[in-house]
Amino acid sequence: MEGEALVLVLDLVGVFAFALSGALGAVHKRLDAFGVVVVASVAALGGGVLRDLLLGDLPPAALEDWRYMVTSLAAALLALVYHPKVSRLRRELTVLDALGLAVFTVAGTSKALDFDVNPTAVPVLGVLTGVGGGLLRDLLLAEVAVVLRREIYALASLAGALVVLACAALGLEGVGVAIGAGALVAGLRITSVGLGWRAPRARGTPPTEELPVPGHDRERPAR
Amino acid sequence: MEGEALVLVLDLVGVFAFALSGALGAVHKRLDAFGVVVVASVAALGGGVLRDLLLGDLPPAALEDWRYMVTSLAAALLALVYHPKVSRLRRELTVLDALGLAVFTVAGTSKALDFDVNPTAVPVLGVLTGVGGGLLRDLLLAEVAVVLRREIYALASLAGALVVLACAALGLEGVGVAIGAGALVAGLRITSVGLGWRAPRARGTPPTEELPVPGHDRERPAR
Amino acid sequence: MEGEALVLVLDLVGVFAFALSGALGAVHKRLDAFGVVVVASVAALGGGVLRDLLLGDLPPAALEDWRYMVTSLAAALLALVYHPKVSRLRRELTVLDALGLAVFTVAGTSKALDFDVNPTAVPVLGVLTGVGGGLLRDLLLAEVAVVLRREIYALASLAGALVVLACAALGLEGVGVAIGAGALVAGLRITSVGLGWRAPRARGTPPTEELPVPGHDRERPAR
Repeated sequence: MEGEALVLVLDLVGVFAFALSGALGAVHKRLDAFGVVVVASVAALGGGVLRDLLLGDLPPAALEDWRYMVTSLAAALLALVYHPKVSRLRRELTVLDALGLAVFTVAGTSKALDFDVNPTAVPVLGVLTGVGGGLLRDLLLAEVAVVLRREIYALASLAGALVVLACAALGLEGVGVAIGAGALVAGLRITSVGLGWRAPRARGTPPTEELPVPGHDRERPAR
Repeated sequence: MEGEALVLVLDLVGVFAFALSGALGAVHKRLDAFGVVVVASVAALGGGVLRDLLLGDLPPAALEDWRYMVTSLAAALLALVYHPKVSRLRRELTVLDALGLAVFTVAGTSKALDFDVNPTAVPVLGVLTGVGGGLLRDLLLAEVAVVLRREIYALASLAGALVVLACAALGLEGVGVAIGAGALVAGLRITSVGLGWRAPRARGTPPTEELPVPGHDRERPAR
Repeated sequence: MEGEALVLVLDLVGVFAFALSGALGAVHKRLDAFGVVVVASVAALGGGVLRDLLLGDLPPAALEDWRYMVTSLAAALLALVYHPKVSRLRRELTVLDALGLAVFTVAGTSKALDFDVNPTAVPVLGVLTGVGGGLLRDLLLAEVAVVLRREIYALASLAGALVVLACAALGLEGVGVAIGAGALVAGLRITSVGLGWRAPRARGTPPTEELPVPGHDRERPAR
């Protein structure tokens, strides 16, 4: 069915984008080639694995389809060989990453709906699928979880998950809903980067200053 | 049954206490409002989710009852709005946190007993339920796990778990045992803070000096 | 059967080695005695628990056999009492750790084969079993995952996992394959330490300089 083929292609785009971000982070930390592959795989497949763990759908889907692993490996190799050039493609990387966030959020939310969990848990699982890989990447690299610090990121994921949930409550499902919700996530994320939107902070905390992310600026690889 | 209502109330007190501690830690790290909610939820629900993952009871209970999520959200909002005042209530926060530790330890141990696992695993699951949320909170905030550094903390949890296990071996179960064991955990924890008790360290390590917890003192929010 | 007894003995050697490495790391971070026991147990049992979580074999085997917990506790006590002496036995510790890596890799790969998962997932689960405990140990101690930075480590584990997988594809299983693959892992690891082998890094990154591992050198305990 063409819907499924579309989902697969989008899914692999998401895996590729997240694997690339994980691999570049690992290169910045000067991990060896194997470490780069590991971090790339964790970033790419981690969100889906966490979701499947919580749903009890084991072994996780990401371990059962070789295409995910191979896509993630390809992104890691690309980063290893061309990392100075790839790192400079900031705009393209942001768009790719936003696509990944969108695809994983929608896929995670839809799967949670299929498993008939409590409605309050559905958006949690959707967001976890979207941002989980990035969270695990940052844990491995011993950084403060960047998805918790950046411009609107998890919040864009949450908006998409809530749209999918609301549509399902109204009896609307299928490729149209998935594309609409995914476009919302990617659009919110890309716009927030472009316009510098930020989620509000606690009262009394200075809003503008940015804390240095530990290790990220100091440990630049040599050019 | 009134026993169950009591357990629910205590459980929600525990969720509230742990969500508050997670939210305050996230505000100190200057996460945005969404990040504060995420860290609060992870701190409040993480211990129970880890326990349910290990027991194979999926999806985890914390994702299936909306009251847990709502309580955790309320605590996060409180921290976002009133964090300078809330941070100053040190004594009240310690007592709340000790109550949470007690409730989660007893609940985790009891559930492990119900699942008929090996007796050596029962206290492990009880302690994991009690301290797991705090561990995950510190992982997210990239800090050395504070539950491993403070005054008697996990040890108080272990004492309570062993009491519940011993009572079960003697055929004693029910609300009385739960309250007794919970009082032991909370009492040990509060007394240890009040009197500055510490667990022994390895031979030859200086016992008094305290290492700075990375990021905790430097990254105070502005008042 | 003598094969099973051999596997048990080797398994417990692995648990002992990894518990010792976790306990020494925790002593270096000046955790209290209970924290040392926790980190030791996580390092020793974490890889197997992660594998069982992903396979859906719950509760995990490590929580169901008291001998694992007791061995891990014994190693933690040894480290607490004799850590200055034990820390000096560098060569012996490396050999022990390599044995643990070998045993866990082979055991994890074999179990994944038994569970009939996709062939691409088999080596992933084998390596995860081998290096997972060390990864979790470093997460708890808030360090960049050392298994991702050192000389050939996870790569040795991968080589062994691929040998077990290839043999199974050829219809070869049993103690002989396990010992051969295990010897390969331990041999590669020990040789790589002895000769200073390293996995290649990304192009353009300086290969010789070593980044300080956060907290590891600064926070030495007093002698």
